[in-house]
Amino acid sequence: MNYPERVLIKEVGPRDGLQNEKVFLPTQTKIDWINQLSKTGLSYIEITSFVNPKWIPALSDCYEVAKGITREPGVTYAALVPNMKGLEKALLADVDEVAVFMSASDTHNKKNINKSIEETFPVLEETIREAKASGKKVRGYLSTVFGCPYEGHVSPEQAEKVTTKLLEMGVYEVSLGDTIGVGNPRQVESNLNQWTASIPKENLALHFHNTRGMALANTLVGMSAGITTIDGSLGGLGGCPYAKGASGNLATDDLIHMLSEMGIDSGIDLGSLVNAGHFIETSLEKPLISHQMEIARAQKAEQTS
Amino acid sequence: MNYPERVLIKEVGPRDGLQNEKVFLPTQTKIDWINQLSKTGLSYIEITSFVNPKWIPALSDCYEVAKGITREPGVTYAALVPNMKGLEKALLADVDEVAVFMSASDTHNKKNINKSIEETFPVLEETIREAKASGKKVRGYLSTVFGCPYEGHVSPEQAEKVTTKLLEMGVYEVSLGDTIGVGNPRQVESNLNQWTASIPKENLALHFHNTRGMALANTLVGMSAGITTIDGSLGGLGGCPYAKGASGNLATDDLIHMLSEMGIDSGIDLGSLVNAGHFIETSLEKPLISHQMEIARAQKAEQTS
Repeated sequence: MNYPERVLIKEVGPRDGLQNEKVFLPTQTKIDWINQLSKTGLSYIEITSFVNPKWIPALSDCYEVAKGITREPGVTYAALVPNMKGLEKALLADVDEVAVFMSASDTHNKKNINKSIEETFPVLEETIREAKASGKKVRGYLSTVFGCPYEGHVSPEQAEKVTTKLLEMGVYEVSLGDTIGVGNPRQVESNLNQWTASIPKENLALHFHNTRGMALANTLVGMSAGITTIDGSLGGLGGCPYAKGASGNLATDDLIHMLSEMGIDSGIDLGSLVNAGHFIETSLEKPLISHQMEIARAQKAEQTS
Repeated sequence: MNYPERVLIKEVGPRDGLQNEKVFLPTQTKIDWINQLSKTGLSYIEITSFVNPKWIPALSDCYEVAKGITREPGVTYAALVPNMKGLEKALLADVDEVAVFMSASDTHNKKNINKSIEETFPVLEETIREAKASGKKVRGYLSTVFGCPYEGHVSPEQAEKVTTKLLEMGVYEVSLGDTIGVGNPRQVESNLNQWTASIPKENLALHFHNTRGMALANTLVGMSAGITTIDGSLGGLGGCPYAKGASGNLATDDLIHMLSEMGIDSGIDLGSLVNAGHFIETSLEKPLISHQMEIARAQKAEQTS
């Protein structure tokens, strides 16, 4: 199998990881955490979401977080925006770039943003156009690409159609999300081969959830298919509301560890990342579920015993 | 990537999974569990270890377990034997086949069985010969194939040398063990390509630990390299004494789930396996760490709430 020499990892923990947390993490804690992440070698951090706080109360301090962090040179600080209203606030906070989102399956899109897929396009089109007019690059997230909690199987054609439309509307990249962690390696390989026949690989990123344990195997296949941008959430932070108790996002630290062992460069220092993980798990008062964090806790316990 | 149509899974939970447990699980519980496993479609179960109870007190009832279980037609019931003394007891208990074991790295071999690699060969040679003379097939386990907790890197040449010697001594298959879970997909692919140049693929099995989360990714690469026999432990039962707190064996249920989603047949029913997992985690009074068991617990909790 062929793998890229270098992979760009986009850290989504402060947004995708924290958005489902029931406790409100103090704004200063979020800022401190992002500042730590900025020193790990990460070059892209999605720091918050400018979504109506009614929907995601955990991130209601999005503006304060974006204004409060220390911006390191070479690091892109991005934020999620659902529409024009979110974009305006994000522009006020002067984030480096924004990301819009929708689903590949109509039912999930309706449940998540109360609109059909067709109704969503014009909302995002305006948002993308205005963001670009303000000099901001726009990323696109596409959810339920490999399966939907309501509709089950999602065809590669359906995901390709929405991906292509998002790219036509002006996003520079679509992050293909396995929202409920049901994609399997054979499906990922087959779908990517189909998609990259018409979509340049450079315009695709992968966003896996580890709900059923297949995230690293799927990432491996994705890299072998030529995708070099992978989303991760430190420590696997971020649940999946459709599979209670099940683990969430692909853990950035487990991903970096595997890449490093395989000789694939990510530019990120695992030790610094684990320290940042320890900071946030202490703040949240719950252990992060990734393997690297588990091993780090065990080693720490052994040293102090 | 090409995968086999069918994979043979060898369940090692009752031996490799239970051997590190600190509580002594009652003999009847072990028997009940193995009898449940026998009804899941598994065709190979390693039921216990005829090792000196001083070393592994958790399995000191090996004879009683082997004699007490109900043997299902079509299921092979195997047991670990370290030497002639263990073999004699295993033969008395009339297990279907036996497995011998040693390490690819000299330091681990010495720590584990108090002999150098060279000193181990004659002990195993006699054991294999006598087992075969008694009509029993013999499997070989090779530990620390991808890395050693004492020596670090283990060269593919070293692992190949010991594997070849074990096959020459009469084992029908060597299970290549990533004892501390350090193997990475690039290494697994590269080593397997090297090994299978001289060793028939049919004589190799893979035995991964998920300590750092790479077990399914490694399995994927192993299947793609033509290996069709994979060891698993239900629920991931089985710790690694060298990485405290870290998860242990590749979980049979997570493996079967991935295979099933990929259309690879294992002949095993995941639902029955999860039920057997629930039985053993209840008996051990600790949750099994696999993703399928985690999801099953969450679904059960949701139904009863």
